[in-house]
Amino acid sequence: MAGNTFGDAFKVTTFGESHGAALGCVIDGVPAGLKISAKEIQADLDRRRPGQSKITTARKEKDKVEILSGVFEGKTLGTPIALLIRNEDQKSRDYSKIKNIFRPGHADFTWEAKFGVRDFRGGGRSSGRETVARVAAAAIAKKIIQSSTLSKQAKKIEVIAHAESIGAVEAEKFDPKQIEKNSVRCGDVAAAKEMEKVILEAQGRGDSVGGVIGIVVRNLPAGLGNPVFDKSEALFSHALMSIGGVKGIEFGVGFAAAKLFGSEMNDEFVVKNNKVAKKTNRAGGILGGITDGDEVLIRLAVKPTASISSLQNTVDSRGRAQKIQIAGRHDPCLVPRVIPVAEAMVYLVLADLMLTQNVKLKT
Amino acid sequence: MAGNTFGDAFKVTTFGESHGAALGCVIDGVPAGLKISAKEIQADLDRRRPGQSKITTARKEKDKVEILSGVFEGKTLGTPIALLIRNEDQKSRDYSKIKNIFRPGHADFTWEAKFGVRDFRGGGRSSGRETVARVAAAAIAKKIIQSSTLSKQAKKIEVIAHAESIGAVEAEKFDPKQIEKNSVRCGDVAAAKEMEKVILEAQGRGDSVGGVIGIVVRNLPAGLGNPVFDKSEALFSHALMSIGGVKGIEFGVGFAAAKLFGSEMNDEFVVKNNKVAKKTNRAGGILGGITDGDEVLIRLAVKPTASISSLQNTVDSRGRAQKIQIAGRHDPCLVPRVIPVAEAMVYLVLADLMLTQNVKLKT
Amino acid sequence: MAGNTFGDAFKVTTFGESHGAALGCVIDGVPAGLKISAKEIQADLDRRRPGQSKITTARKEKDKVEILSGVFEGKTLGTPIALLIRNEDQKSRDYSKIKNIFRPGHADFTWEAKFGVRDFRGGGRSSGRETVARVAAAAIAKKIIQSSTLSKQAKKIEVIAHAESIGAVEAEKFDPKQIEKNSVRCGDVAAAKEMEKVILEAQGRGDSVGGVIGIVVRNLPAGLGNPVFDKSEALFSHALMSIGGVKGIEFGVGFAAAKLFGSEMNDEFVVKNNKVAKKTNRAGGILGGITDGDEVLIRLAVKPTASISSLQNTVDSRGRAQKIQIAGRHDPCLVPRVIPVAEAMVYLVLADLMLTQNVKLKT
Amino acid sequence: MAGNTFGDAFKVTTFGESHGAALGCVIDGVPAGLKISAKEIQADLDRRRPGQSKITTARKEKDKVEILSGVFEGKTLGTPIALLIRNEDQKSRDYSKIKNIFRPGHADFTWEAKFGVRDFRGGGRSSGRETVARVAAAAIAKKIIQSSTLSKQAKKIEVIAHAESIGAVEAEKFDPKQIEKNSVRCGDVAAAKEMEKVILEAQGRGDSVGGVIGIVVRNLPAGLGNPVFDKSEALFSHALMSIGGVKGIEFGVGFAAAKLFGSEMNDEFVVKNNKVAKKTNRAGGILGGITDGDEVLIRLAVKPTASISSLQNTVDSRGRAQKIQIAGRHDPCLVPRVIPVAEAMVYLVLADLMLTQNVKLKT
Repeated sequence: MAGNTFGDAFKVTTFGESHGAALGCVIDGVPAGLKISAKEIQADLDRRRPGQSKITTARKEKDKVEILSGVFEGKTLGTPIALLIRNEDQKSRDYSKIKNIFRPGHADFTWEAKFGVRDFRGGGRSSGRETVARVAAAAIAKKIIQSSTLSKQAKKIEVIAHAESIGAVEAEKFDPKQIEKNSVRCGDVAAAKEMEKVILEAQGRGDSVGGVIGIVVRNLPAGLGNPVFDKSEALFSHALMSIGGVKGIEFGVGFAAAKLFGSEMNDEFVVKNNKVAKKTNRAGGILGGITDGDEVLIRLAVKPTASISSLQNTVDSRGRAQKIQIAGRHDPCLVPRVIPVAEAMVYLVLADLMLTQNVKLKT
Repeated sequence: MAGNTFGDAFKVTTFGESHGAALGCVIDGVPAGLKISAKEIQADLDRRRPGQSKITTARKEKDKVEILSGVFEGKTLGTPIALLIRNEDQKSRDYSKIKNIFRPGHADFTWEAKFGVRDFRGGGRSSGRETVARVAAAAIAKKIIQSSTLSKQAKKIEVIAHAESIGAVEAEKFDPKQIEKNSVRCGDVAAAKEMEKVILEAQGRGDSVGGVIGIVVRNLPAGLGNPVFDKSEALFSHALMSIGGVKGIEFGVGFAAAKLFGSEMNDEFVVKNNKVAKKTNRAGGILGGITDGDEVLIRLAVKPTASISSLQNTVDSRGRAQKIQIAGRHDPCLVPRVIPVAEAMVYLVLADLMLTQNVKLKT
Repeated sequence: MAGNTFGDAFKVTTFGESHGAALGCVIDGVPAGLKISAKEIQADLDRRRPGQSKITTARKEKDKVEILSGVFEGKTLGTPIALLIRNEDQKSRDYSKIKNIFRPGHADFTWEAKFGVRDFRGGGRSSGRETVARVAAAAIAKKIIQSSTLSKQAKKIEVIAHAESIGAVEAEKFDPKQIEKNSVRCGDVAAAKEMEKVILEAQGRGDSVGGVIGIVVRNLPAGLGNPVFDKSEALFSHALMSIGGVKGIEFGVGFAAAKLFGSEMNDEFVVKNNKVAKKTNRAGGILGGITDGDEVLIRLAVKPTASISSLQNTVDSRGRAQKIQIAGRHDPCLVPRVIPVAEAMVYLVLADLMLTQNVKLKT
Repeated sequence: MAGNTFGDAFKVTTFGESHGAALGCVIDGVPAGLKISAKEIQADLDRRRPGQSKITTARKEKDKVEILSGVFEGKTLGTPIALLIRNEDQKSRDYSKIKNIFRPGHADFTWEAKFGVRDFRGGGRSSGRETVARVAAAAIAKKIIQSSTLSKQAKKIEVIAHAESIGAVEAEKFDPKQIEKNSVRCGDVAAAKEMEKVILEAQGRGDSVGGVIGIVVRNLPAGLGNPVFDKSEALFSHALMSIGGVKGIEFGVGFAAAKLFGSEMNDEFVVKNNKVAKKTNRAGGILGGITDGDEVLIRLAVKPTASISSLQNTVDSRGRAQKIQIAGRHDPCLVPRVIPVAEAMVYLVLADLMLTQNVKLKT
């Protein structure tokens, strides 16, 4: 359990440090015969890539993916698919100043406690850059899900994540078509402008700001997930809480459920379009750990970026008091960057669930 | 991934249906030579057992545990420990009425969708009764943790869960010594009384009520957990979100982080008692997925019990509209019952983390 | 990796010591809706059970199996199936004499080296008695395999193990119908008599004797197994070499391949009954780790029973020279006892392979 | 279980096709702080590399390894180590002729049966070229083992594989120093010359020849391994039987045990150098699945190379009879090539066993 592998039937192992030679992943369990191209994966990496608006970092890497194995003549072979993304931006910046200093809100101290050694350049493997491999793997997970008979017979299964709030600004509408049209990835145009303002103000003060991400999974069939330890909520939570900066997760009405009575919480079953359905969706699309055919609704709490340029007090590895100002441009808000990663993690869980569904026997 | 096994180095596999012959678990990975007795496990099962106050169900089972293997002359052998709890309360109640009806808020429909067949007696394996095996396993996990050199050299590592709120009533103090002295397991005597009142009122109306559980893990060393997919938060979330009725989880300031600026969120590092520590603990004791030596702080949102005796609309397995009133006594609030289970799940994660820490080599 | 779980999709965890309270297993991954009864499992346990002929031990246990979970109204629920076999023969024999002595050929010393503690009564978990749980689990594996569409459409998939040789006596024919009609489980009536004689002679001298088990798997489809680390041969070898007393395994012509030229070894492909087939079967039914549709042919070397009543030199746990005569009746030859266990292990592998075959997608 | 990952605590995932872009692996579980360089890994790859003598293939690839991650300033970080080996020899040979023909003794047909699609260029992932990633990973496994306190305090733990026989020629001596000095990797100079002759003769006739590999593991401590499903023999067998062309494995006296009496097989325990030891080593260094401190002795049966240039009968994917002559130079004997791979697989098992040994608790 060194924790660099995710999934069981769709098994992804990632590797790479922020300023090492490369990042990437190996995906085992992809069925043979699936059409896949580097271009499709690249599209998702491009969406994740930093440096695309005034509120994201200027790291200018192309994040170009190379398929090293597992695909032949445009189709998967059923063998492991290895994806490689070289680091280009390994400029010989001087890290000697922060090398021994524990940055507040960062993993410097805890890595030291666990490993006794760390790659201090750009956070090493604790950097958000690690998620590039997750997004690459998820491009293939998404392809499997959307190629499945399940998805083809019905409507397309898709995962949509978006900014629900940034600081005190909350979205009041949700129009998925707007999401990619604004820098914060919000489904409410008006709110998006306010959110951007809040972010730029924080940045102007050498500060950063948090927010909430909403996730909707559409057109999932009922019956996915497991009853006990691997309930769908448990798997989604494992996946999403493994993203750096996420401090909380809730499903359906979530924490609000704590204030409700049973008669207010329970969703009545009804019949819609000849199928059993729920009149409301307070549960968030999962009952007893298994999907109920309704939209899966998830919310994530994202903390403000730990790297801020204001002066902070801290200590170094010898326990001496230090003052630190974190140089370089950093995203003043993680929300827009975490959104594609959150979608990726949901796709990884879904691919795994779909590939492990119990085989039906003639009985 | 059928999901009945939890953990890697400390691996627990549970089994059993609510009204089947028995429930239990097999634990693999327990080191040899550890003193353990059925009595110690029984103490934890007794604490979890229903029927102990006016706000819990009257199921009168002794939940007597038997150690079937892995312990010899009072010590663990290093072989699997199997624990067995027989079901006594399998009275031949008539389930024919609800057999084909999908109870709102329950897993009846989703199990049908996944498995096509289910044990409808008392919810079968989707019953909260399944957690008896988790608590039994955790008694051994706790023993390992508290027998470790880590725990012995320093203060005892312990997990304390308690009712933070029930419905609209919130605890304002936290005195751990009070927790087991009131029926809601709250650390605030005055609030406990109010909480109990809210629960009884809901019950009186044939209704139920939700709440929030707080969890504190004390005296953990820094350095536990993993950097990427198996961050501590991810593992705790997987564990705790696998408990029936839990709809959300947060760490440290949790969802409140979404409204903070980085300068408000970051915890400064300082030196306390010659050790690196944090001045505040907004992070909740985990940075970059790895424990930082501070208290781990977790909060769980618990939904109101789905089984209520008021009349509810629903459908049956043929899609016909039905009305249902759930007979039998059910807990009007899950919070006091979930508390020992939540502690158990945290102990399972901790045992796993402690047994998988990287071996140090002379290098 | 404490090693008490076998399989991935069909996952069996066993527990129990020879003279503890009980032995048993939990099986996770059994599809829902499969008809199964305790009677069917019992039939396989009865076949494995000792005390059935003059060449097997007199331990008089009924090995009665109880299904604790996972089966409801005669059908599997898709939840874990726990099987329990109580130990009845726990008579308070005096083990004080051998408690600290390392029996030659046994695991006493190595367990001491690994665990520092052991259950010395009848070998504890290192006893062959441990295999009762494997045979119980395999009864369900066999049921899955033989209920599958694969098996139903074609001829029944079955595993047949038999005594190929005992000491110097070799079978010259192979008539499967004879196997259960003689005490050594040999497919050659005449040889069986000679084998029995060799065994009784060895026993008469306070000695024991080894042998070779042949295994044939019939009617397997082509395409099972994996290309790299989990080649079919690798999985079968893992499974079969985990049986106590097995010192070697070979597939097809096996060790004889080392003396052949490629032109003698390669099996020509031909077409039989409109299917691609092999003219010969030197490969033993597996090519590149994947089944080729031919019979899978395996041979196991079984060492003579380590427990012999002749006087042996050894040492005790303090390193003092000791003489030991192993009291009690022990099987003078393991072959007939290992045969059902070998079949069981092959069924476990097959169930796992069949349940994990790649899902086909519409592409 | 797609089978491209090996090990648990020391977990290796490999990828790559013979004529794809690259081969490689990701290793998770390597402890932090271990000194490692590409040079050390390269040395092992160079030893495995083909084209080094007249009896091996002429594929002229440098097999240059690149460390992509997990190593910083010459030391391991505790994060995944990804190793990359580019394929250079991807010349656009014309595979159209054999594309649809099932080569005898090869995996063409079985891959078709399993996956429905395959990379026919040089066997794709079924090629022996796949083992380059295993050898690379094992270089790190070996480093861990030989850096361990265990290895340092006592004599160096090492694995030595060598040609015991080629065709009818058997080695009569075993001098480890000779192994790398002859083209067949035999510990007997005189026999080596005869073996080489047998190989060249076979090759001259367009044929190939098999052989036996002996493996000795020296200076292992007692106490490694597990009692039930993951006995040491089971793990070594899994590992070694996953190498293409291996048709059998035996431990200690192996198949000869089948002809022995217990009094001849059992090894007496004695005390040597103040430690419990065995007077003889028929068991091959393992008792009850756990190492006994003696040399681990293993033998592998290796079949003759399936690729031969003589004319063979076979069929194509449409079931039409075909004649085939396998062009290109192929190793006429796999033994010398399998030897470094066999050592590699043993090192992978040992690293896993050493990293998963039970943690000792103060009890």
